[in-house]
Amino acid sequence: MRLTSYTDYALRTLIYLGTHRDRLVTIQDIADLHAISKNHLMKVVHQLGVSGMVDTVRGRNGGLRLKREPADINIGAVVRNTETDFYMAECFDPANQGCAYSASCTLKGVLGAATAAYLKVLDGVTLADMLAGAPQADAFSPVRIYPRAALPG
Amino acid sequence: MRLTSYTDYALRTLIYLGTHRDRLVTIQDIADLHAISKNHLMKVVHQLGVSGMVDTVRGRNGGLRLKREPADINIGAVVRNTETDFYMAECFDPANQGCAYSASCTLKGVLGAATAAYLKVLDGVTLADMLAGAPQADAFSPVRIYPRAALPG
Repeated sequence: MRLTSYTDYALRTLIYLGTHRDRLVTIQDIADLHAISKNHLMKVVHQLGVSGMVDTVRGRNGGLRLKREPADINIGAVVRNTETDFYMAECFDPANQGCAYSASCTLKGVLGAATAAYLKVLDGVTLADMLAGAPQADAFSPVRIYPRAALPG
Repeated sequence: MRLTSYTDYALRTLIYLGTHRDRLVTIQDIADLHAISKNHLMKVVHQLGVSGMVDTVRGRNGGLRLKREPADINIGAVVRNTETDFYMAECFDPANQGCAYSASCTLKGVLGAATAAYLKVLDGVTLADMLAGAPQADAFSPVRIYPRAALPG
């Protein structure tokens, strides 16, 4: 059972923004820190913008910042928003009505209850709760850029 | 967030065996019913055998049957056994120690608590509970085989 990497990066982006509220953050900062694709991260950031969690400032000195207070960013809401689906079995797919058990099977109910319990835990957590245990500000710095003189060759 | 199709088929196999305790069931019966690959199902059944949940009788009239009473087959144990992992984010992968947040990040704890809540629901359910709501015996029949005369052409 996995969350998508999309959700993983959305959560890490929010954590980064929450620990760098003193400045605008660039997508490059976060991509460098996690050594992930900037293109992939741009899609994540775009959706966080559409859902009103992240604000984008354009221009040469532009960047990203949280649009809401961390206490107002619910982790359950983020995960519901970034996961494409919670299809625990074929019967969760609305396009698939083919399961021979579907008429009276209890599988969907059992797996649905487990998924609800999963999301209920996340619904009880805000970004502020998560930041409370995280180091503040520059503890999460982008990867160190070595001065040219220090590079081999 | 998804379970693997492997887990989905393992659960459906157990439900089928639990509702057909009057006879040996073949892999073909289950593959036909769900229109799924017999090869894929063979791997699922093999693992259910290794974990002591399903018994295989060899030979011309052989087939499968439950090795334990449905009340002794815990759904949480089945899912833990069939899912390859519960990696909710990169930090859940023991091979990946690269996350820049790992030292003090709360993400793993939060997602781990949610996963534990998910499994706790399943730990409270047995196959017998699931069968209690399911139709018995031949209600889950393999796909109907039309007599040759009824086929077009």
